[in-house]
Amino acid sequence: MRTFYSDHQSRHAPSVELQNGALVPHAESAERVDAIKRVLPRLEAAKDFGLDPILAVHDADYVDFLRRAYTDWASAGRPGDAFPYVFPIRGRRPLNLKRIDAELGRYAYDCGTLVAPGTWDAVYWSAQTALTGLEAVMTSGEATFAFCRPPGHHAGRDYMGGYSYLNAAAIAAEQALRSGAETVAVLDVDYHHGNGTQDIFYGRNDVLTISLHADPSMDYPFYWGHVDETGQDAGDGYNLNLPMARGTEWSAYKAQLAAAIERLQAFAPDVLIVPFGADTYIKDPISFFAIETADYTSMARMIADLGLPTLICMEGGYAVDDLGANVAAFLNGFSA
Amino acid sequence: MRTFYSDHQSRHAPSVELQNGALVPHAESAERVDAIKRVLPRLEAAKDFGLDPILAVHDADYVDFLRRAYTDWASAGRPGDAFPYVFPIRGRRPLNLKRIDAELGRYAYDCGTLVAPGTWDAVYWSAQTALTGLEAVMTSGEATFAFCRPPGHHAGRDYMGGYSYLNAAAIAAEQALRSGAETVAVLDVDYHHGNGTQDIFYGRNDVLTISLHADPSMDYPFYWGHVDETGQDAGDGYNLNLPMARGTEWSAYKAQLAAAIERLQAFAPDVLIVPFGADTYIKDPISFFAIETADYTSMARMIADLGLPTLICMEGGYAVDDLGANVAAFLNGFSA
Repeated sequence: MRTFYSDHQSRHAPSVELQNGALVPHAESAERVDAIKRVLPRLEAAKDFGLDPILAVHDADYVDFLRRAYTDWASAGRPGDAFPYVFPIRGRRPLNLKRIDAELGRYAYDCGTLVAPGTWDAVYWSAQTALTGLEAVMTSGEATFAFCRPPGHHAGRDYMGGYSYLNAAAIAAEQALRSGAETVAVLDVDYHHGNGTQDIFYGRNDVLTISLHADPSMDYPFYWGHVDETGQDAGDGYNLNLPMARGTEWSAYKAQLAAAIERLQAFAPDVLIVPFGADTYIKDPISFFAIETADYTSMARMIADLGLPTLICMEGGYAVDDLGANVAAFLNGFSA
Repeated sequence: MRTFYSDHQSRHAPSVELQNGALVPHAESAERVDAIKRVLPRLEAAKDFGLDPILAVHDADYVDFLRRAYTDWASAGRPGDAFPYVFPIRGRRPLNLKRIDAELGRYAYDCGTLVAPGTWDAVYWSAQTALTGLEAVMTSGEATFAFCRPPGHHAGRDYMGGYSYLNAAAIAAEQALRSGAETVAVLDVDYHHGNGTQDIFYGRNDVLTISLHADPSMDYPFYWGHVDETGQDAGDGYNLNLPMARGTEWSAYKAQLAAAIERLQAFAPDVLIVPFGADTYIKDPISFFAIETADYTSMARMIADLGLPTLICMEGGYAVDDLGANVAAFLNGFSA
């Protein structure tokens, strides 16, 4: 399988995040990169497709904000990474405020999504990595791995959150449509609901979004990912949420994945995008499923058996010691 | 002047808050209490008016949340004070989620408003202190000081933020109407815009809300307090925002206060409520006006000259060393 990465993505190194009211080292660490790189000996460099495919998914003012957020923070004499901490409660109008603190609150929905000096560079190249992978998929029809980082699936059209800034998988999905695909499906198998992706395509029937994830009444992102969120307008029926209880093992997960596969077969998309998180892993430090390393191969095989041109985009996974093995196990399911 | 306080209010002692991405000791400290108590030798204890007047202003589910938030957080095995950190970005429906983290995000709009073990007790009695003061005003017509704490003017009908949980001034305003007043005005002279009070009465013409504050395009709470927010529906024209630039001295402040006084004279309310913050003070550590201690007496005199039955509710003010003197200077303006 071809695998893509851009070293720019390592430049994003957020320092700390809030946990129980204390600041702890950020879980989405650059060490995750080395863990995955070790199992990808033939990593190819991402190409540059420019801003256009990004602007097809994200609002221009949000992208502009992301690009300058760290500089604006630093120019205001503020130390460390740009840290959002105040938010316009539901119902406030989207004022064009210039103060960086107000902008951080406008565009973020949590305090875990810091803008560090290298963040823009990293997220730009994370999107390019997905686009480079997509090009390979569209050309060859072969399953391809875009080693995206930081994660993207929590980022909406105009918001960041959940360690996510630009939604690389959504950007690739949109680009697939612009490159000749008539329909695309996104099958999100990260531990957390892919709320950004859901929101971006919520009103559309040309992109089917499916997410298997921890029950959001117990786990982040809480406010999205519930079963009654099925899409709206033309998109009604084109969003499928499959939440599972904490402690879910592969046997129970498999049944939900089978339901997702069935929906995918009925939809028969031209291209499949798989945001893959290894945080469903039993030893993940911030998540609570019980998937074992070998299960990832079975999981991938079920998806590979669909026989669809498939782009896999890296999302979460924070058990750094076993992260490479889990990614390798998943990718092996496509080669077997 | 009669002055009221409840010792329950000292039980709210939030530990830390975010500043530049680091945790620092919380500015709304219990030391503020001692600083003010020193200048109030004849402090009387607040009476208990029960929950009814609180529920006339705040939603029942929000009050219920506040009451149990710390216990829910602690029962979930979480250390320290309940600390909000993830928020439903604009447009998410108000789900009835049980997980304390999701509820904190639902009801808070920032990360500075922790729920500590004594918070409910303190905010309940802060409201009772305002109600006790109001009763004295309604009975005697004399200006009265309700030493409320923590601050309240950033709290809306169903949200907390800006160190504020229950809006004592708004609760007193509503109670004034229920006690026979036909119209009430709120004149907020804290450094920060009184966004909660504005929101609570935004659609009504029986409560005129006026706020003099730092320009929200530069200062907290950013998303509220702009000049074009004039009220809506029946309340259109009954909200007046008078933002001022950082560095504003008494001479410039006085001109804005004169405009507020003029509007108050035209409205001729039966009762006036004054949320008073001493954070307009030149040495305030988190604010940026240049009001001097003696100016507070001039400020109060302009308000006292209206000759209205007036309840003063304590809000912010974080220069602890001079806080007592500033409060005393303000209250002296009513006695002179």
